[in-house]
Amino acid sequence: MNWVDEGALYSQIASFLREDLGRGDITSQAIIERNTRARGRFVSGEKMIVAGLEAAEEVFMTLDSEQQLEAFAADGEEIETGKVIARTTGFADVLLAGERLALNLLQRLSGVATLTQQYVRAVEGTPAHIVDTRKSTPGLRMLERYAISLGGGRNHRFGLDDGVIIKANHVAVAGGIAQAVRKAREKLGQLQKIEVQVSNERELREALEQGADTLLFADLPVVEVSRLVDIAREQSSKVIVECSGDITLENVRAYAEAGADMISVAALTQSARAMNLSFQIQLA
Amino acid sequence: MNWVDEGALYSQIASFLREDLGRGDITSQAIIERNTRARGRFVSGEKMIVAGLEAAEEVFMTLDSEQQLEAFAADGEEIETGKVIARTTGFADVLLAGERLALNLLQRLSGVATLTQQYVRAVEGTPAHIVDTRKSTPGLRMLERYAISLGGGRNHRFGLDDGVIIKANHVAVAGGIAQAVRKAREKLGQLQKIEVQVSNERELREALEQGADTLLFADLPVVEVSRLVDIAREQSSKVIVECSGDITLENVRAYAEAGADMISVAALTQSARAMNLSFQIQLA
Amino acid sequence: MNWVDEGALYSQIASFLREDLGRGDITSQAIIERNTRARGRFVSGEKMIVAGLEAAEEVFMTLDSEQQLEAFAADGEEIETGKVIARTTGFADVLLAGERLALNLLQRLSGVATLTQQYVRAVEGTPAHIVDTRKSTPGLRMLERYAISLGGGRNHRFGLDDGVIIKANHVAVAGGIAQAVRKAREKLGQLQKIEVQVSNERELREALEQGADTLLFADLPVVEVSRLVDIAREQSSKVIVECSGDITLENVRAYAEAGADMISVAALTQSARAMNLSFQIQLA
Amino acid sequence: MNWVDEGALYSQIASFLREDLGRGDITSQAIIERNTRARGRFVSGEKMIVAGLEAAEEVFMTLDSEQQLEAFAADGEEIETGKVIARTTGFADVLLAGERLALNLLQRLSGVATLTQQYVRAVEGTPAHIVDTRKSTPGLRMLERYAISLGGGRNHRFGLDDGVIIKANHVAVAGGIAQAVRKAREKLGQLQKIEVQVSNERELREALEQGADTLLFADLPVVEVSRLVDIAREQSSKVIVECSGDITLENVRAYAEAGADMISVAALTQSARAMNLSFQIQLA
Amino acid sequence: MNWVDEGALYSQIASFLREDLGRGDITSQAIIERNTRARGRFVSGEKMIVAGLEAAEEVFMTLDSEQQLEAFAADGEEIETGKVIARTTGFADVLLAGERLALNLLQRLSGVATLTQQYVRAVEGTPAHIVDTRKSTPGLRMLERYAISLGGGRNHRFGLDDGVIIKANHVAVAGGIAQAVRKAREKLGQLQKIEVQVSNERELREALEQGADTLLFADLPVVEVSRLVDIAREQSSKVIVECSGDITLENVRAYAEAGADMISVAALTQSARAMNLSFQIQLA
Amino acid sequence: MNWVDEGALYSQIASFLREDLGRGDITSQAIIERNTRARGRFVSGEKMIVAGLEAAEEVFMTLDSEQQLEAFAADGEEIETGKVIARTTGFADVLLAGERLALNLLQRLSGVATLTQQYVRAVEGTPAHIVDTRKSTPGLRMLERYAISLGGGRNHRFGLDDGVIIKANHVAVAGGIAQAVRKAREKLGQLQKIEVQVSNERELREALEQGADTLLFADLPVVEVSRLVDIAREQSSKVIVECSGDITLENVRAYAEAGADMISVAALTQSARAMNLSFQIQLA
Repeated sequence: MNWVDEGALYSQIASFLREDLGRGDITSQAIIERNTRARGRFVSGEKMIVAGLEAAEEVFMTLDSEQQLEAFAADGEEIETGKVIARTTGFADVLLAGERLALNLLQRLSGVATLTQQYVRAVEGTPAHIVDTRKSTPGLRMLERYAISLGGGRNHRFGLDDGVIIKANHVAVAGGIAQAVRKAREKLGQLQKIEVQVSNERELREALEQGADTLLFADLPVVEVSRLVDIAREQSSKVIVECSGDITLENVRAYAEAGADMISVAALTQSARAMNLSFQIQLA
Repeated sequence: MNWVDEGALYSQIASFLREDLGRGDITSQAIIERNTRARGRFVSGEKMIVAGLEAAEEVFMTLDSEQQLEAFAADGEEIETGKVIARTTGFADVLLAGERLALNLLQRLSGVATLTQQYVRAVEGTPAHIVDTRKSTPGLRMLERYAISLGGGRNHRFGLDDGVIIKANHVAVAGGIAQAVRKAREKLGQLQKIEVQVSNERELREALEQGADTLLFADLPVVEVSRLVDIAREQSSKVIVECSGDITLENVRAYAEAGADMISVAALTQSARAMNLSFQIQLA
Repeated sequence: MNWVDEGALYSQIASFLREDLGRGDITSQAIIERNTRARGRFVSGEKMIVAGLEAAEEVFMTLDSEQQLEAFAADGEEIETGKVIARTTGFADVLLAGERLALNLLQRLSGVATLTQQYVRAVEGTPAHIVDTRKSTPGLRMLERYAISLGGGRNHRFGLDDGVIIKANHVAVAGGIAQAVRKAREKLGQLQKIEVQVSNERELREALEQGADTLLFADLPVVEVSRLVDIAREQSSKVIVECSGDITLENVRAYAEAGADMISVAALTQSARAMNLSFQIQLA
Repeated sequence: MNWVDEGALYSQIASFLREDLGRGDITSQAIIERNTRARGRFVSGEKMIVAGLEAAEEVFMTLDSEQQLEAFAADGEEIETGKVIARTTGFADVLLAGERLALNLLQRLSGVATLTQQYVRAVEGTPAHIVDTRKSTPGLRMLERYAISLGGGRNHRFGLDDGVIIKANHVAVAGGIAQAVRKAREKLGQLQKIEVQVSNERELREALEQGADTLLFADLPVVEVSRLVDIAREQSSKVIVECSGDITLENVRAYAEAGADMISVAALTQSARAMNLSFQIQLA
Repeated sequence: MNWVDEGALYSQIASFLREDLGRGDITSQAIIERNTRARGRFVSGEKMIVAGLEAAEEVFMTLDSEQQLEAFAADGEEIETGKVIARTTGFADVLLAGERLALNLLQRLSGVATLTQQYVRAVEGTPAHIVDTRKSTPGLRMLERYAISLGGGRNHRFGLDDGVIIKANHVAVAGGIAQAVRKAREKLGQLQKIEVQVSNERELREALEQGADTLLFADLPVVEVSRLVDIAREQSSKVIVECSGDITLENVRAYAEAGADMISVAALTQSARAMNLSFQIQLA
Repeated sequence: MNWVDEGALYSQIASFLREDLGRGDITSQAIIERNTRARGRFVSGEKMIVAGLEAAEEVFMTLDSEQQLEAFAADGEEIETGKVIARTTGFADVLLAGERLALNLLQRLSGVATLTQQYVRAVEGTPAHIVDTRKSTPGLRMLERYAISLGGGRNHRFGLDDGVIIKANHVAVAGGIAQAVRKAREKLGQLQKIEVQVSNERELREALEQGADTLLFADLPVVEVSRLVDIAREQSSKVIVECSGDITLENVRAYAEAGADMISVAALTQSARAMNLSFQIQLA
């Protein structure tokens, strides 16, 4: 991890801990003897791609810089039910204070990674890549993108500042596709690729004529995608095609076979459920 | 909303916007004429309890303090498919910059509220209350608790600092239930209610003897809950009973009928899916 | 100390240092050779319960992470006049930069602890506990509560968010005691104890009928407290009684003997004077 | 008030409110109807110089930007017992949330101003000025200096960065008075006045020979101060003399008459007690 | 200005003011009567492209939200010597507190804009664009980029995160140009353009074979640039060429005529001098 | 370096890095193998007084706390062309991420130090000191003052809060020089020196009569300065004289010989150009 990501992770974990701890864990303060030491271990309750071990360790290290995690699996690894994924030893009050957040992170991120893997497997053998969307959980984009990459997905632009995608709502206020792409080319063209959402053949041709690099087909049926991909490839051998909108585990392969280079799947962050994982503490 | 919640909401929204905007929306900067005005409207794609309209408005007002939302439904209201929930008029670049975050919040929070309502309806007619857990999304606890209350659920303690719950992991390091409750009583008893997780009759009696106010039955079968509730009521007419662990829409009513006062449901925040909602922009 | 308190202490000390140092100690910068090393020692000028040594050490460690304090007394210990409480060795400019703040903290906190001890001794042998109030110095509540606990006092709720006390001003706007307690019961009763200020028998009965857990007698004469305590105990064997208002070293025992469980004393933080302590520096 | 002080006051008040409110006032949230309006008034319980009205108003305005204070006395004014100092109308929950902090500030700052005035009156008719010290309450220096100026005192340097005072502890590590003053002159002399603590005639002569501008007599008896002042005035007509150390209301005039230009009084911030002031709320 | 830039500008101005004001302007506090009103006006001392008026206004508005600037020229306009560029009326202490920072910003930014314009004019009639570099003043990149755009320059990537440029130092650790470009293509190719520094024909061919979009010629003589541009255009009709390194007003046109699409000029931010501008205050 | 300066430097470097890195260095992330180690060295491209090595080291240490700089020259040392000033070994991505900022700081600060030295040498043999002004680069005052001291200059007041200078704009709103100085004396005189800008003999006499300590001659011709200095010295043997305004390397000695004690030179921070320095990276 580099300085930017490390700094962001540390500051997120600290803020999540403050959310849960407020003025401090009054239960532990009342009933645990100071300096009591304990052991804790994370155990999987189902099969999953594990994700978030680095974040979970950061939870404990933020509370006590000496308390590392001994991991028996790596982020991105597929594990079976009943596996001891990691263990840690430290002050009992630190384990109890960090337990819930560490689990919340592990359960959610593993859920995202596991679901991503299912999509990636569904398109195996096709040239299509599964990519993420900006439909992430507010505040968790960095971590969710990480989980998606662990599951075999690719990361699209991080936010509105590091990639140009002209969507239908932009076109509506910019006065048409041709005009929107032309302006983007003028202002940004030497430095940035331009992606444009098109919904039919006319729009596709307009976009490519103005020099669009990437086409986005949103909410189009597979047959229409297939037809438009052929037309696009004829126009420009280098054009990249992305599909999005209501992509499910059932239909994702069909879109891949229709010729999409990238398939962006909102479900990765909108429908992943928390994996079954527990944390067991005992005296050290 | 009071000062504390307002301040927290404002600072969260600003931080979520920074996550998505980074150094700014380069697409809009390139293709939208400065000062172009536009209209946007949120439309439901399915039936739901809507939640997050105040947060969505805060998104736009953070970007431009003049841009309010005109809502046609209130947070907590049940709406049908195809309903225009709210609309707003403002600068086109503000609408485009806030669109994704506003939707991300509305879709998720409405999902939580809608799922909560299903649980609440499932126990209707029983004295049991559906309550939330600390298994919330890191960083979103305040908003998710709000969505749960809109769905008819009740809010349990916010975090580790405003309520005492002695769980199995605490007991493991504190040296037994009796000892844990006694210490908590001594240190906090005049000011705080003491809740204790118990898993059998012996533990239940120990807890009540030491003056526990509330009992938590986690992961116990319904019949066992029913038996233990009867014993508890005999011991203390005022004791409160909470159930938790693998509560589903299928089994929740059974737990309620077994005599629980509170049923805490992790699924409210761990398994809610994003509701189908869209935002449509056109020139003003 | 746990993470929450450590973080809060560190950030307070740093902010207090910035208050005193501004852009830096221009006297030391001008006249002390870089890297000059020196020794300093804290000496008591009167008998006291010492409090704040951990905070004083944090002052020096914030300025120079290597500079620890060697303490010859522990926080909470009673010391005589002329005692060397602690000493430290480090860079001369660090000692000179931290001296004033370390003393300001030690003198004030020791003053609070010493005064608390006098109150605690005054009620020795009665079941009453001396407790703190929210009449603390703005910004110093955490440290003053700590000093009070060192002096043998107990800590009441930290702030408005971790305990329910319905005072006369609340009753005035809530429409009467019965109504206020009933609402509090409904909203918070399963999770929180309810404390209510009552000033006569009628109010006491109203409060207990609605299920108040704790009664607060503020500014009542001892005889009236005594009478009301008896009535309260008849109504509910578990009710807790707190007295407050113009409690002095002269009258505190009378209130304790009148049956109060808790006596909250504003003077602990409002009238404590700074203890006589000095810091002497010489070349190392 | 200028931008610097305004910003500092606002940020302090907000931080003090967060200290008291934490996650919010659960009592008001439970029992006060939303949007209930109420009136509150501050009433004096004893004679005092009032100080802190601007700060008290900032408390309420921070909670609700519309809620101003109508003051019937000005900061610095002497008021009698039973006087209604100020009143305010607003939301009941805002009044209840701000009440304690507003009182804590008013009571303490009025205490400082009132005590200062007693010292100022004690030296009336002499050329001496009562000045403050760095023995202020950590975090409250700006407000306490303000209260001291309201009581008729003068403000000495704010912190270590805006004035040079070479005290005994500096001399101990700098290698003597002559050397310390010479270095300070060299480094800072064109821009800053140099003040030096001296304890006898030899040190006084050394200091003046090296060009000290101001002499500090700490913990010297009045007769010695008197003798040294005469010697100093002979050496330099422009020299300024400050006295400090165990200054009391009883001995302050003697020091003034001994010829001090400034008498710095630690008691102003170390021994002031909170004034008797109350806040009464009723429905609007 | 959008929310991101507004927020960044506001927070920069506030931080610059704190740098200059520290604990407040002691001169004004001592000698200016409170509420004295005054007028100030900015007057040019030489011919320039003015830049920074919005920033200068933000200086005064940060100090006093009511104090706007009445501008008689727009950012980016060319003005003559002796021109009153803007005037403002407000509190005298606000004018005196903001004067220096407002001038520091206007003088520097106008210097950058004016120098940029000279470079832009030097290449007039050629297809080359003058672009900025990351050799900006630490902390001022946003403002300097803005000044450069006012002078007619174009903005290259903001920082390391929004554009890929593989320079010689990257190649040295990545194991050759071919390998570096190939990896970049794989990881980022669908979303980002790849720019590569090449210093001879072999490197140029390697880069283009691996799919580089843009070539950077750094520190190459004009004739070599000319030759390489021809080779590059043969290979790929769409390739973009950037030149950099020791570009001066004397040689910039030659590089433009050699076929560069972009010429990045470090001098714009490294050698611009402050323009001659003054601020004159009088009583209002 | 003391705590205040260390803290300020660290927080500046971190903020400068965030400016350049945004969400991270996408080029390195794509093409550099994780954990690749490399060596870098700074080489001078011209003769200069080097300044900023401590800041450059802080750049790398902020990115990776283990990565120190091995310096072959000290800040303030004069070095020749082609000198290896410092080298460092660490992770390749850290070197590439810090390179630009480290250079930007070194080049600019060395430029300021080098130019300062030229001014200092120009007045060698006279009693005049070259001093800095508040015409520094916004945000960089601390670092630029440091560079100026390395070049042999002296530091004037840091900002508006640690020194009193009454300039023409102050006089214009304060109602005349006599009145301005008198007020300043009254309010601040015991603690602060008073400097006053005067432009002729009448103003000079007014200022000295009211007790000004220092006179500022701004934009006056050398002969006039010479004449006024003589008059001032007659009035007060202790008066200090500062000159400012359009001081150049050509005329600075004349001002020094005219009798100025301090000559403040805006050009030090307004006209210094970046020195020629490069950073070369290779595999370790």
